[in-house]
Amino acid sequence: MSPPLDRPFGFTVTQRDPGCAARCGVLHTPHGDVPTPVFMPVGTVGTVKAMTFEQLTATGARIILGNTYHLHLRPGSELIASLGGLHRFQGWDGAVLTDSAGFQVFSLSDLVKITEDGVHFRSHLDGARLFFTPELSMEIQCNLGADIVMAFDQCVAADAGPDEIARGVDRTGRWLRRCVDAFGPGGRRHENGYERVLFGIMQGGTSIGERRRSAEDIVQLDLPGYAIGGLSVGEPKDVLHAMTAEAAPLLPPDRPRYLMGVGYPDDILAAVLAGVDMFDCVLPTRMARTGSVLTWDGRLVVKNSVYARDERPIDADCPCPTCRRHSRAYIRHLFQARELLGPMLATQHNLWFYQELMRGIADAIGQNRLVAYARQVTDRWNDGERRRLDRIAHNGPGGRGR
Amino acid sequence: MSPPLDRPFGFTVTQRDPGCAARCGVLHTPHGDVPTPVFMPVGTVGTVKAMTFEQLTATGARIILGNTYHLHLRPGSELIASLGGLHRFQGWDGAVLTDSAGFQVFSLSDLVKITEDGVHFRSHLDGARLFFTPELSMEIQCNLGADIVMAFDQCVAADAGPDEIARGVDRTGRWLRRCVDAFGPGGRRHENGYERVLFGIMQGGTSIGERRRSAEDIVQLDLPGYAIGGLSVGEPKDVLHAMTAEAAPLLPPDRPRYLMGVGYPDDILAAVLAGVDMFDCVLPTRMARTGSVLTWDGRLVVKNSVYARDERPIDADCPCPTCRRHSRAYIRHLFQARELLGPMLATQHNLWFYQELMRGIADAIGQNRLVAYARQVTDRWNDGERRRLDRIAHNGPGGRGR
Repeated sequence: MSPPLDRPFGFTVTQRDPGCAARCGVLHTPHGDVPTPVFMPVGTVGTVKAMTFEQLTATGARIILGNTYHLHLRPGSELIASLGGLHRFQGWDGAVLTDSAGFQVFSLSDLVKITEDGVHFRSHLDGARLFFTPELSMEIQCNLGADIVMAFDQCVAADAGPDEIARGVDRTGRWLRRCVDAFGPGGRRHENGYERVLFGIMQGGTSIGERRRSAEDIVQLDLPGYAIGGLSVGEPKDVLHAMTAEAAPLLPPDRPRYLMGVGYPDDILAAVLAGVDMFDCVLPTRMARTGSVLTWDGRLVVKNSVYARDERPIDADCPCPTCRRHSRAYIRHLFQARELLGPMLATQHNLWFYQELMRGIADAIGQNRLVAYARQVTDRWNDGERRRLDRIAHNGPGGRGR
Repeated sequence: MSPPLDRPFGFTVTQRDPGCAARCGVLHTPHGDVPTPVFMPVGTVGTVKAMTFEQLTATGARIILGNTYHLHLRPGSELIASLGGLHRFQGWDGAVLTDSAGFQVFSLSDLVKITEDGVHFRSHLDGARLFFTPELSMEIQCNLGADIVMAFDQCVAADAGPDEIARGVDRTGRWLRRCVDAFGPGGRRHENGYERVLFGIMQGGTSIGERRRSAEDIVQLDLPGYAIGGLSVGEPKDVLHAMTAEAAPLLPPDRPRYLMGVGYPDDILAAVLAGVDMFDCVLPTRMARTGSVLTWDGRLVVKNSVYARDERPIDADCPCPTCRRHSRAYIRHLFQARELLGPMLATQHNLWFYQELMRGIADAIGQNRLVAYARQVTDRWNDGERRRLDRIAHNGPGGRGR
């Protein structure tokens, strides 16, 4: 691995599309420059599931996400720190962003008790009692040695009422200040010599007023980047898109904007149009492991029997190693036989697909035509999805009647 | 994939080590030349488990094995034939050897009934009744389109008595003639234009006399290659080595000799010293998936807690991508967290290890010093294994007391 660069974190906007709020840029990190808009594959527990780091690099990925909660449980952040930090532990010389565990606390546990001090809940592995605080989240993330550390926030459910949303905004603001204090000037400097940065997270549910209040609160802290949290938690797609469009411009234009946990290609396109720069989502990797792959014409459940004799690649336009070598029939067989190569090939394809999408977005921004590109990609995707759902309605998911 | 070459199968001996019976050679196949001695990774059901074909090629593998029985059950050889044969189906342009299902019939099913006509048994997947004959085995293997087709033989258990061994030899000889008839001049020509060949299999259990009788019987058929079957079925290591040393010279020196299902590095070394050219074994791939990896100092159970903080690669001398990038601590964590990347990285390492061993063997033959090389590798392996077993005896398998 190349040694990390001893230089400050930075974000440069390199191009803007005058037809929308989209921009191209570069995140300068101690572990290399990352072109934006960027999709960050999720490497939950120190591995992007079913991918080698050589394969991941080949997709074009330059930054991945690590999960504070999962790595805290296993193998533990002290162990990772003692082995030189997460980059070195997992053998990845690109950049790493770690989430704060705030979202896992919200999504993984039925037995959560939130107090002003922090969150009591139980491990999904063994039921052990855990207590996460802003300070602990900072400590773990500093142990992991991420390039970008995320604030410990309070996410509320999609159906939360106004009072609950407002309380989440207030608490997220107070906790952000505790994160800043805990992270401190000392926390910024990794023992390996490079500078970490802390990003704040906006909450506010589906209330535009609360989104504004949250943004005004956290922007006061003048952090090097900001995220939009609390979306993609079950709300309808049009609400997600509308809220993103409202929320993004509330964040400073000279800082990277990160929409957490999003999403499908059309969600990403809508968000880039609104001025968002960074994304992460388990969708491409998680879908792949169940035998669903992504094409420009929508999802394709490659494990279905309809593909048993289909000699075409997953997507005829895809340059990935899976599509260059293998047919749908073969990949379907691998899933049928429960072979590890099935999830491996499907994951590789899906992550290439997302990186191809991001490259297409960047090209379109460079040519001032993102609005047209987004419409074209979204229309083609939606047409394909409609045809797929029609087929299922007529023939059942296996599509034998086709 | 490159088109297969329309030229006859052949075997050329290129070098001999005067200190033993070992030789280097080249198998000329329609799907490329394969240097020997060769280790063939096992691609049971159309995939070398947990490996992409890019990764497999990078190890140096030029020929892999496919399993007639498994591919017959799933996805079926007619389907594979309709999609252009096994090479094209799995996306592999190297050579393929298919076994005959004879060994699976012997090893997988408790409910086997052998008649002169063939073998009745039950599918390990769903218990369905199956009936394998020499003719069916030839038909399936021709459907698969292997470069090298193996005869359907009768394997007997390691503890078989003299009469049973003799009956196995006789039946294997009769079945070989049925295979030759079924394979025929017509069977040799694949519809894609290339020539397939049929190898005979010697049986004879642990009886030198029966081995000789079997060899004399099958050699009469003047086949392009011969295998030693019926070993590595549970007999002690010294018996395996002694029988290999007796059996190999009974086969024609100008034909490739293939010791089926073998084995550990010292077994392969002993067999190459005796004049064997080809090997296959599930050992490196199967062990990898349970967290055992191979080093020049013996096995290493990398998933054990003793490696939780071990920053060294699996083997300091290994040039494989796993060892160049990852520590034992990381791979141990992956197995602990049941991540797919654990088996992927361990398999990659183990297959590289075997190909490195074969390259070391070929170099040593080229320098007329295979006897010394074999002793050195075997002594170092045995020393390492002894130390490992001592540690386990003192500390238990996790080695926490170390």
